[in-house]
Amino acid sequence: MQKAFRSARSAPSFRAWQPYLDAALGFRNHWYPAFFGAELAEGECRGQQLLGEPILFKRAGGSVYALPDRCAHRGTPFSVRPECYTRNTITCWYHGFTYDVRDGRLVAVVTDPESALIGKLSLKSYPVQEQKGIVFVFVGDIEPPPLIEDVQPGFLDEALAVLPVGDADVVKSNWRLAAENGVDAAHIYIHRNSELVEATGMTLPLGILPGSREGMVSAAPGGPKGIVKGGKEIPIWDADIETARVSARNRPGMGKNRVNPDVSLWLPCGLKVDPSPGASEIPGMIHFEWYVPVDEHSHRYLVTWGKHVGSQQEAETFYGDVETKWRSIIRRFNDDDIAAREAMERFYAEEDGWHRERLFRPDVVITEWRKLASKHNRGIQRAVAE
Amino acid sequence: MQKAFRSARSAPSFRAWQPYLDAALGFRNHWYPAFFGAELAEGECRGQQLLGEPILFKRAGGSVYALPDRCAHRGTPFSVRPECYTRNTITCWYHGFTYDVRDGRLVAVVTDPESALIGKLSLKSYPVQEQKGIVFVFVGDIEPPPLIEDVQPGFLDEALAVLPVGDADVVKSNWRLAAENGVDAAHIYIHRNSELVEATGMTLPLGILPGSREGMVSAAPGGPKGIVKGGKEIPIWDADIETARVSARNRPGMGKNRVNPDVSLWLPCGLKVDPSPGASEIPGMIHFEWYVPVDEHSHRYLVTWGKHVGSQQEAETFYGDVETKWRSIIRRFNDDDIAAREAMERFYAEEDGWHRERLFRPDVVITEWRKLASKHNRGIQRAVAE
Amino acid sequence: MQKAFRSARSAPSFRAWQPYLDAALGFRNHWYPAFFGAELAEGECRGQQLLGEPILFKRAGGSVYALPDRCAHRGTPFSVRPECYTRNTITCWYHGFTYDVRDGRLVAVVTDPESALIGKLSLKSYPVQEQKGIVFVFVGDIEPPPLIEDVQPGFLDEALAVLPVGDADVVKSNWRLAAENGVDAAHIYIHRNSELVEATGMTLPLGILPGSREGMVSAAPGGPKGIVKGGKEIPIWDADIETARVSARNRPGMGKNRVNPDVSLWLPCGLKVDPSPGASEIPGMIHFEWYVPVDEHSHRYLVTWGKHVGSQQEAETFYGDVETKWRSIIRRFNDDDIAAREAMERFYAEEDGWHRERLFRPDVVITEWRKLASKHNRGIQRAVAE
Repeated sequence: MQKAFRSARSAPSFRAWQPYLDAALGFRNHWYPAFFGAELAEGECRGQQLLGEPILFKRAGGSVYALPDRCAHRGTPFSVRPECYTRNTITCWYHGFTYDVRDGRLVAVVTDPESALIGKLSLKSYPVQEQKGIVFVFVGDIEPPPLIEDVQPGFLDEALAVLPVGDADVVKSNWRLAAENGVDAAHIYIHRNSELVEATGMTLPLGILPGSREGMVSAAPGGPKGIVKGGKEIPIWDADIETARVSARNRPGMGKNRVNPDVSLWLPCGLKVDPSPGASEIPGMIHFEWYVPVDEHSHRYLVTWGKHVGSQQEAETFYGDVETKWRSIIRRFNDDDIAAREAMERFYAEEDGWHRERLFRPDVVITEWRKLASKHNRGIQRAVAE
Repeated sequence: MQKAFRSARSAPSFRAWQPYLDAALGFRNHWYPAFFGAELAEGECRGQQLLGEPILFKRAGGSVYALPDRCAHRGTPFSVRPECYTRNTITCWYHGFTYDVRDGRLVAVVTDPESALIGKLSLKSYPVQEQKGIVFVFVGDIEPPPLIEDVQPGFLDEALAVLPVGDADVVKSNWRLAAENGVDAAHIYIHRNSELVEATGMTLPLGILPGSREGMVSAAPGGPKGIVKGGKEIPIWDADIETARVSARNRPGMGKNRVNPDVSLWLPCGLKVDPSPGASEIPGMIHFEWYVPVDEHSHRYLVTWGKHVGSQQEAETFYGDVETKWRSIIRRFNDDDIAAREAMERFYAEEDGWHRERLFRPDVVITEWRKLASKHNRGIQRAVAE
Repeated sequence: MQKAFRSARSAPSFRAWQPYLDAALGFRNHWYPAFFGAELAEGECRGQQLLGEPILFKRAGGSVYALPDRCAHRGTPFSVRPECYTRNTITCWYHGFTYDVRDGRLVAVVTDPESALIGKLSLKSYPVQEQKGIVFVFVGDIEPPPLIEDVQPGFLDEALAVLPVGDADVVKSNWRLAAENGVDAAHIYIHRNSELVEATGMTLPLGILPGSREGMVSAAPGGPKGIVKGGKEIPIWDADIETARVSARNRPGMGKNRVNPDVSLWLPCGLKVDPSPGASEIPGMIHFEWYVPVDEHSHRYLVTWGKHVGSQQEAETFYGDVETKWRSIIRRFNDDDIAAREAMERFYAEEDGWHRERLFRPDVVITEWRKLASKHNRGIQRAVAE
């Protein structure tokens, strides 16, 4: 496809975000959301791959622990046939190597009880924190920084009630295409005829021109690092193609006015939309989502909804409202996003898309994100065999 | 499988056709048949990969136009959700980039109507010609030569009535194995017990020894370049294996005599069989087929039947005759060819077949073809990411 | 997954068995069991891949012969449409190249009966021997040594009656993981709750500590080369994990005492268990199995049961006993072994397991095997295209 795109090229701006281009498997030394805590009952195990690493999670005594899902002996995945003789251990079903899930130490070997390896051999132990119904795991080698530095601002607020949306989707695209779609100022075009717009009568522009680059970057020491789409945005309601006019379904004056949300994207991979589009139905609702690398060509897509509440009763009301007023409307909304991420995958994965793309001005949010991620990440994740 | 074949090797003749060996994706700067025109109605779009390139076709105002099936912005395939606001445009469903299909120019961006890219950014525009019910596309970078230089001789004759056979098969072999099977003097062995031979009583030799190399090459300036199996062919009717005799089902004197056809193969990938085996039922019938590279391991297989006619009425009679006298007989004939092409694929793709094959004298037609194709092609097609 | 395993490494012992690590496709110049003779009737053909080589087997006049399953001409697999005009030949269905299956010589070409290649071109001919109901094929280039050097000791004894277990499984792991599982002293842990243990009440320890390395290697000139798990083994009946005790289901005094078998592994890929666990029901029974490389990521798993008998009548009794007393008990026993082999595959194939594994003392049997195989093999099998 030589010269498929005939146009002069500006200086190769992609050099400004080379570390990001290298991060096909995500960033090392960050906290990542793995799954919803409710998915793992006491005493149960769960194997899940994140950032190319197979990880075994077990809940023991209420807490979740994480080890490599590979016995140190010969790499057998514990999760194929999880064996737990005691609360705090996982035993490899093949030769009985038994580890304390709390620290990864080999504490017994059923087939050789006096093995010299006991007490000497260890599996890596992944730091884990469970917050707001999400199990976060730290994929890295350094002393983990506080979780609050790796999640969207406000997500850990005590007063925030959070509801997981459901099972995570596994989407067949690199995680970066998903993150960029999430924060993309112009991507709302794909939602213009969504059930959301139809059912709520909400105004939704065809696209949004971001404001100035100034103030976009949020990178205060000790806090999360992210990009916030600026406030001086310009909505697009109409466009002309030859003699045809394309217009937003509901425009100002024609529908329920949408509150222009702050959309922001945070290292390592979390989006915040505040207020959520759902705030038209449930005031104060905030949308959070994450794009967690599984391998180079797929990611897990986790979504939660939150709202600041003053009491448990308010929280329950919020949860109830979500079920009655929101879930059915939004049900298939993200299918469009998933379709867009997957549609780009081949171009970026096989056709040198990272160097052939031609961005337009709304993409300034994306390029600012790439630069921020290149600058503030704590490491590039590499494949096991590299 | 070292030394699997024990035999002295002659000098490496494959050096005489190295360019051909490099053309796993076909030849660049040639006209290729993409699909039958009847498959694309006015206003409709169609995504199809040729020679490794994803291409978007649209019929607008009767004519077919072709662009890369990748938005210049971020590589989204238009064909996933084709959006056409006007007759002459295709809009990317992701961000609303809108191109004039006639020349590939970016004429509007729905999400940013005043984008500076409008009028400056262009997609490549593939030249297209629709002739005899086939949409031809020029995959290349140069000013395209006349179509007549890239199709089988006579195919564009005004007096030739042409009938597409049906949907193209996608065959799981490299296109060259298909082209070589088509012109292969000895391959008729696989058809010896076909329905064709049975139902028509037609004589069909076990194999054919080509005549002399002389006169095989057809490469006059300004015309198509191809190989014509010579006239002094020797048919093989019987062969002995130990004490067993293998004979053609119908031999001269035993059946309806087959007219020995001219079989010829033309750059970039078209076969002509004149007369067609069908001429026994429908005098004057000619067979045309093409092996169009999709990727390195598959090709589209297009077949048409033609006949010179003196009027539209004669054309209609021909079309009717095909339905009543021919289509049912020949229905599964090409399945044997497809099986042969696919059976060779692993040897050539994974086992270095191009250098390990041991050709025999009927293959002179094939080696002449390889040399001709190496000499007269206008370029080697490369993969996008190379 | 950098540093997933936190522990000091000893000197890289894997250097002691580098040839074995190179033998992903098995060893060249050895006899391998291909299939059970009963699976190939007189006059029939069978295509099967061994050690990465596609091979065509034909039974002619009672004997089995083997050629590459690739016509020398253009690599077409005979087995796609086997054509046999005479007892001793195979004809390629594409162009009629006809080979004598007994020596691989090209004896006729149906489409060119006077081809100069006849009598000159040959396919390699693989030596074949059929013994004890198994068809063995020699994959190599040298004069084959006697079969007895490449099978488990005693397998060819005249007095041994042998019963094939059934169809071979194709298991999705490299053959070495299977061989190592077979001879693994500790792997019996996976069988501790098997139907075998339940139904027979047989004692089965949790694991076995092998005896001294001394006497483990069996490598007398002129005989098969293998590893025999030594006699001073120590069975493990109990193990403690924190406060929990893990015990064998049946322990000495609690069940029918298991006779401690000699387990041995022989080049190129055969295991012998003597007596078989089945000897508790059928005294004298011996278990044989093989792990035959198909490609780098799969192997065929052949199992037979044998017993020394004094007459044909005793043999028939043995065969009958197997059906009534043994087959149903053992039916799914090897499923655990298959699960274990497949579970290790990704670690060894994609995650550098051969260099990351951390062996424990029962694995001395495995490391002795690796060293023996590295020393006594007759060559490393390479892929066709290397």
